[in-house]
Order: sequence, then structure tokens, then C-alpha cells
Amino acid sequence: MQTTYGNLFHNLPLDRSAKVVDLLHQRAGLKIERIISNGQASPPGFWYDNPQEEWVLLLSGAAALTLEGKAAQHIMHPGDWLHIPAHCRHRIEWTDAGQPTVWLAVHHPIDPP
Amino acid sequence: MQTTYGNLFHNLPLDRSAKVVDLLHQRAGLKIERIISNGQASPPGFWYDNPQEEWVLLLSGAAALTLEGKAAQHIMHPGDWLHIPAHCRHRIEWTDAGQPTVWLAVHHPIDPP
Repeated sequence: MQTTYGNLFHNLPLDRSAKVVDLLHQRAGLKIERIISNGQASPPGFWYDNPQEEWVLLLSGAAALTLEGKAAQHIMHPGDWLHIPAHCRHRIEWTDAGQPTVWLAVHHPIDPP
Repeated sequence: MQTTYGNLFHNLPLDRSAKVVDLLHQRAGLKIERIISNGQASPPGFWYDNPQEEWVLLLSGAAALTLEGKAAQHIMHPGDWLHIPAHCRHRIEWTDAGQPTVWLAVHHPIDPP
């Protein structure tokens, strides 16, 4: 099997009107993605509710999340990582409007019971 | 289940005499680690030969790897990621001597046949 490689800051999408997701690596149950946000946020009233767990790392830009049941927003800056358990409802309140926010996201199943 | 979080650039080890590995997240077969190198390299003649696959991202500093069978070194700068298949023998030739090299490593099993 060949190695694959790339750079998370290269080939940033020119169209900044939507969030862009690139699949970097995939195996049974595991998915590693680069996500680029350009000021996008979750629509009012929308909550992510994922059946898989998610581990995210913010590499550039900034963002604020709301995690259901927590009053304070969770602000993220470069180097910040966050593990979001399955079915932990969350929203993106804002992402940096002045520069691309580059995320790495690792999606993986819950441990077998 | 609670969220967990941290920052990859915080709490860098003061002792720069050895490579330091911190486990950030673990599930069945999946391990996410922060690795800090401070100029360390693989000993002469040593090759990593891992039964698991590894996906690595370099966040600060720099490094050069040799992948068995490839003549040219694989140089890595911030934002560079590399997927190393299971049993792809490789060595770290050098890491930045002037600053910590911060890596994210995702270890995961080979796909079931």
C-alpha cells in the first residue's frame, strides 16, 4: 500500500460562500476530514446530533461552539482540540469571518459495549 | 459522556532531552496522540515497523522521514500530513533542533480483510 500525503493549508477553496469538506483518509468506521469554514455557522435552531464520536482540532482561524447543556460557549483557537461524544448535541455559533477556519475532524464509532 | 478538550501547543514539556508522547483519546483500536520531538531522530539502523496504520500531522517545527524503498527523504512542515500504511518501514532522519516539533498521530487498525 502506498503512502498518501498532503498539506492542510494548501489548495484552500476559492469559493468562500460555503463550508468545504475534504476526505483525507478512510478505513472501516474511521474517517479523517479537513473542514474549511469561512464565517459559516449552524442555522438558527439547528443542532448536530451524530451517531459517531468526533475528535476535532482547529488549525487556523477561530470558532465558537455550543454544547447542549452548557451555558458558556466553547471558544476554539489554533491548536485547540475537542472530543465530542456520540449524540452530544452541538452547534457552531460562529467561525472567523476574516480568514479561513481550518479544522481536522476524526470521526469514529463508539466503543463496542 | 463528557467532552474532553485541550490545546496541542500548551504544556510543552520542559525536558527537551527525549521525545514525549501524550495520549489524547483512545477507543477500541483507535489512539490519538500528541508527540513532541526536540531534535530527536531514529537511532542509526532503526526502522519503525508498525502492525497498525498511522496518520500523522506536523503542526510546528519540521522533520524528515525516510520511507523504505524511496530514495528521497520526505520533508514535513506545518500543515503537512502523511498516511503510513501498516508495516511500511520508516525512520525519522531529523527533527527541528531549534524549536519543538509538535505532531498529531492517529493510530488505527488495518481494514478487516
